Amino acid sequence: MKSAVFYGKRDIRVSEWETPKLNPDEVLIKVMACGVCGSDLHIFEGDQGSTTTVPPLIQGHEFAGIITEIGSKVSNYKVGDRVCADPADNCGECFYCVSGMMSHCDHMGAIGTNINGGFSEYCKVKSRLLHRLEDDTTYIEGAMAEPLACCINGIDRSDIKAGDNVVIYGGGTIGLLMLQLAKLRGASRVALVEPVKERRETAIKLGADVVINPMECSVKEALADHKLNHIRVVIECCGLKSTSEEAIQIVDKQGIVVLFAVTALDASIDLATYQIFQKEVTVTGSFCSPYTMARAVELINAHRLDLMPMIGATLPMEELSDVLGNAERRAKGKVIILPNGQE
Amino acid sequence: MKSAVFYGKRDIRVSEWETPKLNPDEVLIKVMACGVCGSDLHIFEGDQGSTTTVPPLIQGHEFAGIITEIGSKVSNYKVGDRVCADPADNCGECFYCVSGMMSHCDHMGAIGTNINGGFSEYCKVKSRLLHRLEDDTTYIEGAMAEPLACCINGIDRSDIKAGDNVVIYGGGTIGLLMLQLAKLRGASRVALVEPVKERRETAIKLGADVVINPMECSVKEALADHKLNHIRVVIECCGLKSTSEEAIQIVDKQGIVVLFAVTALDASIDLATYQIFQKEVTVTGSFCSPYTMARAVELINAHRLDLMPMIGATLPMEELSDVLGNAERRAKGKVIILPNGQE
Amino acid sequence: MKSAVFYGKRDIRVSEWETPKLNPDEVLIKVMACGVCGSDLHIFEGDQGSTTTVPPLIQGHEFAGIITEIGSKVSNYKVGDRVCADPADNCGECFYCVSGMMSHCDHMGAIGTNINGGFSEYCKVKSRLLHRLEDDTTYIEGAMAEPLACCINGIDRSDIKAGDNVVIYGGGTIGLLMLQLAKLRGASRVALVEPVKERRETAIKLGADVVINPMECSVKEALADHKLNHIRVVIECCGLKSTSEEAIQIVDKQGIVVLFAVTALDASIDLATYQIFQKEVTVTGSFCSPYTMARAVELINAHRLDLMPMIGATLPMEELSDVLGNAERRAKGKVIILPNGQE
Amino acid sequence: MKSAVFYGKRDIRVSEWETPKLNPDEVLIKVMACGVCGSDLHIFEGDQGSTTTVPPLIQGHEFAGIITEIGSKVSNYKVGDRVCADPADNCGECFYCVSGMMSHCDHMGAIGTNINGGFSEYCKVKSRLLHRLEDDTTYIEGAMAEPLACCINGIDRSDIKAGDNVVIYGGGTIGLLMLQLAKLRGASRVALVEPVKERRETAIKLGADVVINPMECSVKEALADHKLNHIRVVIECCGLKSTSEEAIQIVDKQGIVVLFAVTALDASIDLATYQIFQKEVTVTGSFCSPYTMARAVELINAHRLDLMPMIGATLPMEELSDVLGNAERRAKGKVIILPNGQE
Ligand SMILES: NC(=O)c1ccc[n+]([C@@H]2O[C@H](COP(=O)([O-])OP(=O)(O)OC[C@H]3O[C@@H](n4cnc5c(N)ncnc54)[C@H](OP(=O)(O)O)[C@@H]3O)[C@@H](O)[C@H]2O)c1
Ligand SMILES: NC(=O)c1ccc[n+]([C@@H]2O[C@H](COP(=O)([O-])OP(=O)(O)OC[C@H]3O[C@@H](n4cnc5c(N)ncnc54)[C@H](OP(=O)(O)O)[C@@H]3O)[C@@H](O)[C@H]2O)c1
Ligand SMILES: NC(=O)c1ccc[n+]([C@@H]2O[C@H](COP(=O)([O-])OP(=O)(O)OC[C@H]3O[C@@H](n4cnc5c(N)ncnc54)[C@H](OP(=O)(O)O)[C@@H]3O)[C@@H](O)[C@H]2O)c1
Ligand SMILES: NC(=O)c1ccc[n+]([C@@H]2O[C@H](COP(=O)([O-])OP(=O)(O)OC[C@H]3O[C@@H](n4cnc5c(N)ncnc54)[C@H](OP(=O)(O)O)[C@@H]3O)[C@@H](O)[C@H]2O)c1
Ligand SMILES: [Zn+2]
Ligand SMILES: [Zn+2]
Ligand SMILES: [Zn+2]
Ligand SMILES: [Zn+2]
Repeated sequence: MKSAVFYGKRDIRVSEWETPKLNPDEVLIKVMACGVCGSDLHIFEGDQGSTTTVPPLIQGHEFAGIITEIGSKVSNYKVGDRVCADPADNCGECFYCVSGMMSHCDHMGAIGTNINGGFSEYCKVKSRLLHRLEDDTTYIEGAMAEPLACCINGIDRSDIKAGDNVVIYGGGTIGLLMLQLAKLRGASRVALVEPVKERRETAIKLGADVVINPMECSVKEALADHKLNHIRVVIECCGLKSTSEEAIQIVDKQGIVVLFAVTALDASIDLATYQIFQKEVTVTGSFCSPYTMARAVELINAHRLDLMPMIGATLPMEELSDVLGNAERRAKGKVIILPNGQE
Repeated sequence: MKSAVFYGKRDIRVSEWETPKLNPDEVLIKVMACGVCGSDLHIFEGDQGSTTTVPPLIQGHEFAGIITEIGSKVSNYKVGDRVCADPADNCGECFYCVSGMMSHCDHMGAIGTNINGGFSEYCKVKSRLLHRLEDDTTYIEGAMAEPLACCINGIDRSDIKAGDNVVIYGGGTIGLLMLQLAKLRGASRVALVEPVKERRETAIKLGADVVINPMECSVKEALADHKLNHIRVVIECCGLKSTSEEAIQIVDKQGIVVLFAVTALDASIDLATYQIFQKEVTVTGSFCSPYTMARAVELINAHRLDLMPMIGATLPMEELSDVLGNAERRAKGKVIILPNGQE
Repeated sequence: MKSAVFYGKRDIRVSEWETPKLNPDEVLIKVMACGVCGSDLHIFEGDQGSTTTVPPLIQGHEFAGIITEIGSKVSNYKVGDRVCADPADNCGECFYCVSGMMSHCDHMGAIGTNINGGFSEYCKVKSRLLHRLEDDTTYIEGAMAEPLACCINGIDRSDIKAGDNVVIYGGGTIGLLMLQLAKLRGASRVALVEPVKERRETAIKLGADVVINPMECSVKEALADHKLNHIRVVIECCGLKSTSEEAIQIVDKQGIVVLFAVTALDASIDLATYQIFQKEVTVTGSFCSPYTMARAVELINAHRLDLMPMIGATLPMEELSDVLGNAERRAKGKVIILPNGQE
Repeated sequence: MKSAVFYGKRDIRVSEWETPKLNPDEVLIKVMACGVCGSDLHIFEGDQGSTTTVPPLIQGHEFAGIITEIGSKVSNYKVGDRVCADPADNCGECFYCVSGMMSHCDHMGAIGTNINGGFSEYCKVKSRLLHRLEDDTTYIEGAMAEPLACCINGIDRSDIKAGDNVVIYGGGTIGLLMLQLAKLRGASRVALVEPVKERRETAIKLGADVVINPMECSVKEALADHKLNHIRVVIECCGLKSTSEEAIQIVDKQGIVVLFAVTALDASIDLATYQIFQKEVTVTGSFCSPYTMARAVELINAHRLDLMPMIGATLPMEELSDVLGNAERRAKGKVIILPNGQE
């Protein structure tokens, strides 16, 4: 089969690779769509991620496709089923797994990071990691299940209640998903802060009540102008020091700030401890997608989110390396690789 | 002023009544819209409600209007302000008030129940109970804030999470509000069960994914037909024994059943205790609107709900008695009394 | 090896049984202590439990012992380790497993119910189900980890807060564990209701602030006599209709009733729906021990509970059948079988 | 009456003051015990606190005493009743009050800060702020209700579950209360970090499983030595940058750090954002005692905490100024002023 193989820092090449042999509990998926994500970039750049990548490895952890072969013990799926996959193959044995914190597994197998993934014509996956797509769900939508599941974990942790006002920093893929989830979770009004005009426009299409360009005005003042006075939740999706610190300034008393972005290993922000005390602010993070894939797929199958406006391009595997090396090509929205071409 | 006064069982008459004198912390409201609710009916019928009504009394606890006079100590409101009111005037002193359970106040003053309410040209209200309507919010919408606040309490207690499937029994005012709140709170798909065709049609307009006529088919089977297999939340809004018991049957493992309807004082259902154990079902109730009015008004001001399709009629005070005595007149939707006529 | 084998309704006999061969991920445990539990009785009596038992089978799901052999792939345990086991071998694949509700697994393997268990000289267990006992923790204490883990799930669901008052019905093994957990969880005062004098006395030793004999006085009045007016949590651990209904009567507004006992499949109670509404009572169940074993073992290893006063007898396997057939022999407290004799 | 009056920075003098006249909803309390707290020190030093103090003012917000006079409308208390008081006189009208966040009231009346308090022979208090002491509860214990109520809010926010391991930084009054509450809330093992030997010894008396002197060893290593590997909750009660940052380092995945101490207005810590993400750490604060006084008094009346070992000295009002100016005199434990001498 043909795969886009990561051979080392900034070196991804489409190569011939042996089609994987199945274990009894695995299925082979013909990958129809596989999203490019920030963590793919980190690996490409040679950064240390949440788990270590040893080249050569096929990246890609946000994918959907069609089953072409099933292992001898797989009974709940069959050839022809349309599915997406949870890339998190936790061990089921460690303290975290048996304590209901599966995403913090001590021995996490991560498809696309330390197990071969979806930037490939075919990918094998344990059947327990699969989720079924409805007939009217596209593979591209299916490929969005994994980032959506991550965002659902974040939105669960944000504890938005019906009628809360919410601010989101960042209008990338994640910020736009969070915007939709915040509205879906009952936010009354959501303001999205984002410097790029096109993204602010997309945000308005996707339901933002207010969009703010932080390069042109003070976020605080813009919120006040729109009478957004009680911001109970802020979700930071760009990972900057300035926005993270501002998040804690603008959030209301007893409010919650979710620092959703992944920062550099040694990054830090100045946490104003008196504000934490006096406003009883809660600052929290969100890590991957524990137990949330089924809900993500349910929401996608029910067409509760508008995913297509977020897609910037659908490209063949041959373009992956260039896309990872070129920020501009990623700026227009989520890039989806189609390893087997258009359907 | 003219008011619709409750003189005793099934005896409400529009009478001349002394316009109330204000205490320093009160305002006088020219009532522009006041909803008729099930508990008004209970009082009309002479039933014992949550607090005792001693005639003569002016009912009406779901109202909005314009301030025409302010007490000497009121500083945050002025004549001309458009407002709605929280009818729950809790004491602030009892065990429940100081423990953060205000709706369970031992000495609750309830406007429309034991304090004169909104079926009247004017009504006086403590300024602390007021909430401001935006210019583009109508008085009728404002009158819906109180039932909405009750439903928000119920939806908080239902703990719907993004991606959950939900079933609602009853397509009256409350069921239709719950439907909207369930979708707003992130439900993936919502099924609404309701025998009356017009209400099912309204439900579809308001976002129901599935509507079921329980007179024509088995609810369980209808849900299965629509592949609604994992029902994490059921909200019962009709108060029947059969539907309440069915709710516990159809809810998923670790699911939540909110018995939102108000039943007769001595009503009971058969609770299948083995199901409670084996499925870890949670059954809970919801009582009034503790601390939820601000969020209700925020949602209404932000136009996050579609309230007008739920309104059955807008009528003068003279019709109140007849409407309370005539189920058919209430069947078409929420009845709103306009004590000062159309705007 | 010698095992107490269940051959059918009321037929348990100590027999020679083949010592199990290990799979690569399993260990062999020399069982030093195995508790007798209500569900063992249900199986003995031929009742249908949460999973189906097909004889011949070795029961016993509350056990601790010493590892005498390890499978080829087991790396985190070694021969000589002292351990107890989680009997719930969930599949890791089904909707419930991947959604963080492991105890509701569709394909649950249950040691002692549908997998051979601990009433035996030896028992094989997957290493992922093991938990380590400290040197100063006895095997009998270790055998209590499983019931304790169940109770921790119940106490989590009761949501007791520091300063709450609590009532517990039943002073059997479970009621006495719940009593201790309620105090441990911050209950201010706990009243325990139990007809048997010896158990009330044990309850006082274990920290009960008030004990009530329901045969001699009204529970409501006894609570009032002790000024226990605001009962925020009631935990029902005897499974009677009368006590379950009374629980809902005595619980405070916004209180929680945990129906922890396992009732007959067709049992039901009369749920007073007006009380559910007006008091906003939450009624819930608790099923097994999802993700709570590590905390149970941590508490036992830290000697945070007083388990020995709850033990009624330690007996050889030969006595198991008689104990299951004789309520009186079980009345003195938890019976522990020692398949390999006293240490 | 005689009162210790704050006349300005470092100027507190015992002076003759007019005994307050009661409003109809107030009672006069003969103050029998009033605790000295860190915020009293802040006011004494001229710092800006949570609300502004305008001299002359009588400080003291942690007090208990006996009612000597009641206002005309007070019905639930009578002369001779032994009580303690909640110093937080919230307005009941603002957004925060009507939204269930009373401690964040926009117009907070704070006894001892902007209303005359308990360092005085007599103090008047609204009856709604009172809580009753049992006959066998001392006034000194009653004076501890307010700090305990603050700590209960913190412990609620820490969400300790039965079986969790906990670390507390600081063995002052607050740290020692938190230690007891953590154990009370179900912590399995609690380690307390504190440089002063006497306080570590008190901590051991009050239930600490491990005490650590941070001047002599690494906290991380000391925890590892005691096999305290999974620290789910850390409560910071000394307010240092180093300990707050360390708290985030040592807490387990999905753990919670409560920054309970009050820091300087402009203090900040370096928050390692990658840790927040990867470990899903929650950092939160706790502000005063919303709705928690009743539970605090219930716990004290039930003698569930051991308060006396925490008391450093009981002194007459004349000593207050010197105690506030002299850290050494406060080092031995909580100082309690007895404005009316020993009982
Ligand atoms: N927690 C999890 O489980 C999880 C899962 C997936 C992703 N993530 C993280 O989530 C973050 C967002 O992902 P993404 O794919 O959406 O990234 P992205 O496409 O880079 O989006 C970030 C957006 O923030 C904008 N931005 C820059 N400066 C800003 C400012 N001052 N105020 C507001 N917005 C500003 C960026 O605009 P410009 O293009 O002009 O810079 C960009 O549009 C990343 O850190 C990613 O690693 C976390
Ligand atoms: N908890 C609270 O705080 C709170 C606050 C407000 C109201 N409530 C309660 O909420 C309940 C609903 O109020 P509402 O104003 O919406 O009442 P409603 O207008 O009477 O609505 C009840 C609806 O349920 C329908 N129904 C009848 N049988 C049914 C069945 N077998 N399955 C499904 N639906 C069925 C009724 O249809 P038909 O017309 O054909 O009978 C009706 O449309 C009332 O009990 C009210 O007292 C509670
Ligand atoms: N949810 C779960 O995950 C789970 C796990 C384990 C066990 N359980 C269940 O928990 C329940 C208790 O177990 P157990 O082992 O403690 O059972 P048990 O030993 O039979 O204890 C029940 C106790 O309740 C007493 N009782 C009887 N009538 C009473 C009354 N009117 N008021 C108060 N107490 C009364 C009984 O006294 P007499 O002896 O005089 O009748 C007995 O002492 C069982 O139903 C068991 O199946 C549930
Ligand atoms: N959030 C709220 O609602 C609330 C309410 C009340 C109080 N508080 C705050 O809680 C904090 C504690 O109050 P407190 O009365 O207990 O104060 P405290 O008596 O000053 O106690 C602080 C303790 O921390 C010790 N300490 C110093 N360095 C340490 C280190 N490196 N590691 C561990 N411990 C160290 C101190 O020892 P040394 O004496 O040797 O310095 C002292 O024993 C204060 O900031 C107070 O303002 C908050
Ligand atoms: Zn693991
Ligand atoms: Zn009250
Ligand atoms: Zn399973
Ligand atoms: Zn206020």
